[in-house]
Amino acid sequence: MSEAPIYGLCDWGTSRFRLWLVDAAGKIHAERRSDDGLDASRTRGFAATLNEHLAGLGAPANLPVIICGMAGSRQGWLEANYVSVPADLHSILSGAVMIGGLERDVRIIPGLSQTGRSPNVMRGEETQLLGAILERNLASGVVVMPGTHSKWVELENGRATSFSTYLTGELYALLAAQSILRHSIGGAVSSASAEHPHFADAVELMLSGERMLGELFAIRAAMLLANLSPEGAASRLSGLLIGAEIAGARTRHGGSVALVASGAMAALYSKALTIAGIGLDLVDADEAVRKGLFVAASTIWPNQGKKA
Amino acid sequence: MSEAPIYGLCDWGTSRFRLWLVDAAGKIHAERRSDDGLDASRTRGFAATLNEHLAGLGAPANLPVIICGMAGSRQGWLEANYVSVPADLHSILSGAVMIGGLERDVRIIPGLSQTGRSPNVMRGEETQLLGAILERNLASGVVVMPGTHSKWVELENGRATSFSTYLTGELYALLAAQSILRHSIGGAVSSASAEHPHFADAVELMLSGERMLGELFAIRAAMLLANLSPEGAASRLSGLLIGAEIAGARTRHGGSVALVASGAMAALYSKALTIAGIGLDLVDADEAVRKGLFVAASTIWPNQGKKA
Repeated sequence: MSEAPIYGLCDWGTSRFRLWLVDAAGKIHAERRSDDGLDASRTRGFAATLNEHLAGLGAPANLPVIICGMAGSRQGWLEANYVSVPADLHSILSGAVMIGGLERDVRIIPGLSQTGRSPNVMRGEETQLLGAILERNLASGVVVMPGTHSKWVELENGRATSFSTYLTGELYALLAAQSILRHSIGGAVSSASAEHPHFADAVELMLSGERMLGELFAIRAAMLLANLSPEGAASRLSGLLIGAEIAGARTRHGGSVALVASGAMAALYSKALTIAGIGLDLVDADEAVRKGLFVAASTIWPNQGKKA
Repeated sequence: MSEAPIYGLCDWGTSRFRLWLVDAAGKIHAERRSDDGLDASRTRGFAATLNEHLAGLGAPANLPVIICGMAGSRQGWLEANYVSVPADLHSILSGAVMIGGLERDVRIIPGLSQTGRSPNVMRGEETQLLGAILERNLASGVVVMPGTHSKWVELENGRATSFSTYLTGELYALLAAQSILRHSIGGAVSSASAEHPHFADAVELMLSGERMLGELFAIRAAMLLANLSPEGAASRLSGLLIGAEIAGARTRHGGSVALVASGAMAALYSKALTIAGIGLDLVDADEAVRKGLFVAASTIWPNQGKKA
């Protein structure tokens, strides 16, 4: 028989909710993934949503839960203030805020902020970043975390010193589903898109210094005039966006990066970074966020394993 | 008493329908503007929609009507083939297709297409372009037509030789209303936005070679961390997009341009072009499309004035 779960680990974003129950060794006992993001949960109540998922997994009533993500934003459950860069990633752990009035101990990890000339914020990725840093024992270099809002973080001597955000994933979703390009694009981009010739073409075009804004409509025109396929169109749009992101980020960063990604994102970014001549060390995004949450829980409740 | 109307002039786009009744001198007798774009009209029927608006203006039953815009697309009333560049703009007039089975003579003007390495299409702007060319007696140079899909057209010896399309207006609408930036942006951009310091800042940033994709999320961060106002956010987003368009187009074109625009677009693009050091001659967009439609009608039905 395996040990009993001692922590709930929760990544609660705008559109996604993920919950894992883990034992003292970090082993997963049970897991939930649902669409109970912020908008859905606000109506039903955050406490009710969390309790329902915990009950569904048979979690003990006193199981403490650590949360990262947009649940800690102004639009979320309780605002957890940002920690400002430059920052030791372990400092986000001491900044976790406890939610009052609950039977169990529930805390939300703060995000990272950057003030000054390039204001920026992240929520959720800081925990993934902590996990990736520990996973690979990173002290300096660049960590890339693709997604709805892709993050490029610079590390120096174990501290996050600066970061930038690219609206890549969100723009892909808007353009593919709601713009004039929706008539040309067939469904979601996949790992296979990374091997489509249009993906590499588009990445190279963006790396050559061309501007994305003038290339988007050409996808529509190529469908009308040159029978561009829906898969070709999706690959091309993805290549333009990811290529523009890398072209923009490369002016600030050189050399190799740690890429924190899973599934299609891992395939697409690996290919695009390789085209750009940027070396990469791939870290699984799911494992990274769980590792970050587990380290947070172990730091906040060090005796939990012993009490159980 | 003024002369009777002899032509109906119609600009029928994806989301907008505009109809003018004009006399032999091109003077407007009556006009309609509505949201009966393609999607609304497809359900009700294109003929029914047009007839209803004509009847509302008291148009004679035999009044011929010339149409430009997306009504001539595959998703429209009847597909009018493209005329391929390089093209004399007058050649689009002879390509107008007649819609069969109607009591009155109704024709749709074809669009322009560009094949080869940079596939591109336009529908509606070719008529505006014809009007602008005649209005200013243009033979060579660059014509800029801002909008949902901004067009930059190169003219040589009275012929349109090449053009490019920027998804500027559509991207503004998607980002302002449906992205994470919707929480930061207050309503539509206006002529006043052109004078907001954030507009000029953003245009200059894009002209300096910075990539738009990395600057979009900063609008959200600046609202969270630095109290950027909704007007400031709207001005900044508009400046980033228009700046990126001009930065992309400027690598192909130099010197001065004819800017075909009205209202807020005229103010925003005039300001941004001036910041980029590009001279401009402003042509009113509404007048240009009416002039193009009127010349088309006069060429197709030269004796209409005499018969009436």
